[in-house]
Amino acid sequence: MKAVVITTPGGPEVLQLQEVEDPQIKEDEVLVKVEATALNRADTLQRQGKYPPPTGASSYPGLECSGQVLPVPQGVSLKDAASLPEVACTVWSTVFMMSRLSAGETFLVHGGSSGIGTFAIQIAKYKGVRVFVTAGSEDKLAVCKDLGADVCINYKNEDFVARVKEETGGKGVDVILDSIGAPYFQKNVDSLSIDGRLFLLGFMGGFVTQVNLASLFAKRITVQAAGLRTRSLENKAEIVSEVEKNVWPAIAAGKLKPVVYKYLPLSKAAEGHQLMESSKHAGKILLVT
Amino acid sequence: MKAVVITTPGGPEVLQLQEVEDPQIKEDEVLVKVEATALNRADTLQRQGKYPPPTGASSYPGLECSGQVLPVPQGVSLKDAASLPEVACTVWSTVFMMSRLSAGETFLVHGGSSGIGTFAIQIAKYKGVRVFVTAGSEDKLAVCKDLGADVCINYKNEDFVARVKEETGGKGVDVILDSIGAPYFQKNVDSLSIDGRLFLLGFMGGFVTQVNLASLFAKRITVQAAGLRTRSLENKAEIVSEVEKNVWPAIAAGKLKPVVYKYLPLSKAAEGHQLMESSKHAGKILLVT
Repeated sequence: MKAVVITTPGGPEVLQLQEVEDPQIKEDEVLVKVEATALNRADTLQRQGKYPPPTGASSYPGLECSGQVLPVPQGVSLKDAASLPEVACTVWSTVFMMSRLSAGETFLVHGGSSGIGTFAIQIAKYKGVRVFVTAGSEDKLAVCKDLGADVCINYKNEDFVARVKEETGGKGVDVILDSIGAPYFQKNVDSLSIDGRLFLLGFMGGFVTQVNLASLFAKRITVQAAGLRTRSLENKAEIVSEVEKNVWPAIAAGKLKPVVYKYLPLSKAAEGHQLMESSKHAGKILLVT
Repeated sequence: MKAVVITTPGGPEVLQLQEVEDPQIKEDEVLVKVEATALNRADTLQRQGKYPPPTGASSYPGLECSGQVLPVPQGVSLKDAASLPEVACTVWSTVFMMSRLSAGETFLVHGGSSGIGTFAIQIAKYKGVRVFVTAGSEDKLAVCKDLGADVCINYKNEDFVARVKEETGGKGVDVILDSIGAPYFQKNVDSLSIDGRLFLLGFMGGFVTQVNLASLFAKRITVQAAGLRTRSLENKAEIVSEVEKNVWPAIAAGKLKPVVYKYLPLSKAAEGHQLMESSKHAGKILLVT
């Protein structure tokens, strides 16, 4: 088969499309004929040697793809379906299953135009939530607004803590989904309401920070951090099943659509990684076989 | 009526038993004839002017008492019942309602011989949990062991992180209840298992610390912090109702007993505060009217 191979840890140029041996399938595995795969930040970290795949897993990058296994939601092409599994499972397992975001609540997602962000906006709106986003350009905020975001904050020229407080009458938001990490930690705590929940998905700005624990106590705040990669098979199966039950019908009903920024052939994986690292995109970047 | 009055913020000597005006009871309040009251760390902080009572609440210290309202559990004197409400509501609302500690799991409580600790050991054992404690003397650890603690760690001559790992085969504990705060934060994270939950009740060692957010992510850790004081009336009512349903039967069945270290007359409130601040006690300090 063909695979994008990380020839050595490094920049996007280390990626090469190569002819490799077909995978050997074990008893509890299935072989998927990949139609398309979508890029994630984790792929770029893995390429740099900073986020190794779990023991026993394939060393080729690629976290999500479309082929078969989960049914393709009605109205979505098999190709575009590659943009859904990672964001749907990530957002559903964190914001909904763990942070228990509910109808009538408020929700802030940083990087609203990212793959995670564009999906989170839509599913939160579908669930009756008031959605706040941050992004770094007016173009990206326009994408968020089109997807239904209620309050769009350009973090380059506006203090998001002040804006969140202003828009919520001083109360703060109920749930925050963050991939920035250290530099946003205290600001996120300051932006939360009483009984607020902060979910940490990533640490693009660093992961060591000072924290005032008394500020967590004063507002009864919950801080959680998790990814999908290290979860048990049972837990992953539970998440996929919840996603099929709760998210797929919203897609079939046209309330939630894949947001694809660019399609590239598999041979241009390096270009895809470059684009993701430039952060110029809004939505998902797909590599098509 | 008589009341212990904080004459001015300061040391225990500022407390005076005085004849004061009877309270004026509002529509949604009841007047309780106090049999006994129990001391809490929050009283000593309030005395120092560091933890003011909520707006509209009485300025006299005293968080819990026995009189009537909640039924006195079978087999407990009205006097000893004063040692129960604050610890029962605090431990139940945090460790069980929020951290979801369950049968078969492991639990570490710091300050195992404190009022909170002695109660937490017993209710956790009653619920089928393996209990770890830390305390600062062999006498205090003996109290914990008598109450059922499985692993007793003297933090003065043993590294609790290493001992927890050793006792759990490297896995760590599922839930930690902590009142030390900053100096224990990273050690607590290091002592937790995958999907572990850290609950912060107090900050006796300080509240500003450095945190490595990636260490939360690696183990999918939940950090929560909360007290009882600022909760809504509805939430407090829910907690008391859960406590009556889940904790009172255990007391009536003799599986959980009040741990009273010393009874003092109300006129010796200052002595009680001194004792609490010396941390020489194990269990609750009661002031009897």
